[in-house]
Amino acid sequence: MLPSTLAAVNLRQTVIDRARVEGDLLKVDDFLNHRVEPNVIAEVAAAFAHLFADGEPDLILTAEASGIPPALATGLEMSLPVVYAKKYLGPGDRYSYTREVHSPTKGTEYRVEVARRALDAGTRVIIIDDFLAGGRTAEALGQIAEEAGCVVLAFGFVLEKTFTGGRERLEANGWNVESLLMVDAIGQGSFDLRAAQ
Amino acid sequence: MLPSTLAAVNLRQTVIDRARVEGDLLKVDDFLNHRVEPNVIAEVAAAFAHLFADGEPDLILTAEASGIPPALATGLEMSLPVVYAKKYLGPGDRYSYTREVHSPTKGTEYRVEVARRALDAGTRVIIIDDFLAGGRTAEALGQIAEEAGCVVLAFGFVLEKTFTGGRERLEANGWNVESLLMVDAIGQGSFDLRAAQ
Repeated sequence: MLPSTLAAVNLRQTVIDRARVEGDLLKVDDFLNHRVEPNVIAEVAAAFAHLFADGEPDLILTAEASGIPPALATGLEMSLPVVYAKKYLGPGDRYSYTREVHSPTKGTEYRVEVARRALDAGTRVIIIDDFLAGGRTAEALGQIAEEAGCVVLAFGFVLEKTFTGGRERLEANGWNVESLLMVDAIGQGSFDLRAAQ
Repeated sequence: MLPSTLAAVNLRQTVIDRARVEGDLLKVDDFLNHRVEPNVIAEVAAAFAHLFADGEPDLILTAEASGIPPALATGLEMSLPVVYAKKYLGPGDRYSYTREVHSPTKGTEYRVEVARRALDAGTRVIIIDDFLAGGRTAEALGQIAEEAGCVVLAFGFVLEKTFTGGRERLEANGWNVESLLMVDAIGQGSFDLRAAQ
């Protein structure tokens, strides 16, 4: 368990109190990414550990940069190694698994890359990220894990936008998707948020 | 303290056993960046907490992506928020503190950026990163923190290359620099490593 000195907080209430809406974006950079509050990320880690312990994972996979805090905190909580994929604009090499990812919001392509030596065949993997929106980066991570011969046990997201097709994209690959909080709408300066289950 | 289930490891021995030399680079991506081993990063966090607790810091500042694991683990250990600067190629805006950083190894300029709302004046800041080499990114973080009116208590690095001028660059600003391990030479497929103190 994480340090008992870290006060437990109610994650949903934190998001309601501290997230900001900018256009159609839900900004959580005051406590979850950019600035990361230790009690918030510890609660995220405890929630993921509770969800995923039964699957007996060997490793957590994520992508830089905003995926690293929830993935690493969960890795510490569960005593698991964390591999974070790098994102590049340039070409890949034969030492890496790579996937090209199209970003509709930025209108660009980028490459998600994991060193071959970082993923052993047979490894039981959980894939964690802060947000599920379109699911393209997460799908690339799942494909990389399967190319490496890993078992993709589940995906875990702190926040899932339920209106952008991400869950459908991942479930179409046969993968299990768990999110802690569901964002059902964003607009007019407000958002609708519910806890999973 | 971090979970007791995480075995303590000797950080220096881990680097000796698992780091690889590629040309003039010391690669630690099997256990410290890219793939992050929980016992290694927990030992790093415990060491930084021991070094920096007396300064009563309020916040840890780092830069994406490889700075996030040591910074976040230390933030969890010390119950401190972590702010990670973003790196961009494009222009800044009035909502951010920014510095241009020249990367001699990549031959490019990039921008280090921290949202103004993430740093309050008077905050006592520790700046943590995985490597100290030329010290340009770290210097940019220190300048940003001081522009925000923060107190820069110290810099903490997991590994310091002692032959690339980084420490001199930071100390010339009047800053305190602490590193856990000193790399005194890299070449011919090997490296010289000693623990600080």
